[in-house]
Amino acid sequence: MKYGIVAFPSKKLQDFANSYRKRYDTHFSKITPHITLKSAFEVDDSKVNEVTNMLQEISKQFKPLSIHVSKVSSFAPVNNAIYLKVEATEQLQKLHDTLHATSFGQEPEYKFVPHITIAQDMSSGEHDDIYGQLRMTDVHSEEVIDRIHLLYQLEDGSWTVHETFRLSGAE
Amino acid sequence: MKYGIVAFPSKKLQDFANSYRKRYDTHFSKITPHITLKSAFEVDDSKVNEVTNMLQEISKQFKPLSIHVSKVSSFAPVNNAIYLKVEATEQLQKLHDTLHATSFGQEPEYKFVPHITIAQDMSSGEHDDIYGQLRMTDVHSEEVIDRIHLLYQLEDGSWTVHETFRLSGAE
Repeated sequence: MKYGIVAFPSKKLQDFANSYRKRYDTHFSKITPHITLKSAFEVDDSKVNEVTNMLQEISKQFKPLSIHVSKVSSFAPVNNAIYLKVEATEQLQKLHDTLHATSFGQEPEYKFVPHITIAQDMSSGEHDDIYGQLRMTDVHSEEVIDRIHLLYQLEDGSWTVHETFRLSGAE
Repeated sequence: MKYGIVAFPSKKLQDFANSYRKRYDTHFSKITPHITLKSAFEVDDSKVNEVTNMLQEISKQFKPLSIHVSKVSSFAPVNNAIYLKVEATEQLQKLHDTLHATSFGQEPEYKFVPHITIAQDMSSGEHDDIYGQLRMTDVHSEEVIDRIHLLYQLEDGSWTVHETFRLSGAE
């Protein structure tokens, strides 16, 4: 089965992201707004417990995540996706690296850019038009996220939460 | 904020339910297929920890849920909703009752009929037509669900998981 690891921001920030996603994000109905910490990776059913045990250990190591959303940005021209930029922190990078240093999943394909996607799968014309409208949006939000989630993907592409892990450590 | 408590069945059963939901269920994009154990109730932000503490206690009391899906059924004429019938068991009833005997939320409006909704918000004509097609579907699935989830609702109606509780007790 395909698994992924995410952090969900506050309801307020999710509602804000959804006000754009409902119009611009093809994944709107597949998952609520999130910060991806480890993108889809395959795990054999027989090994899921190993993954959850590992996540239990990792979540005991990290303290709640300090999140600062600072502006609207875009991955273009690599990818026509627009996102709420989450400022990089040492803590986020270390959590990301720890989740990727485990024996499950693969090496990250790209450098880690923490973000909440609000628009994707657009033509370049659409992207430029929408990004032109959104890039000046005044976005500024600081919050603390005290948990991460292990999710699995259904055949239609939607994601169900398998388990929650509270961040209760010191790092 | 509005919270609810559900159990998600296996990926296999969720995929099966979604094969109908994508066509017939207006809530398809709001939440993955689930068995509602306690429907939406309001909790003040300052009291969420009380709810999760209570759920931690309750989940330590109950063992994983034995689920037997036996047929397609309908709530008509009370409600034009079609569902996968989950056979009532003493264990499910007791978990439901325990979740409703707490100090949060309200008394259940209806008798507890465990189910996984696959179609809703149809006119009576549509309902009769679709139910006529689905009622003879051979559905038979037995499985064990070892966790329940506390969810909260976003403004657009979709649900995000707040926390997972593993059923680790003896009842």
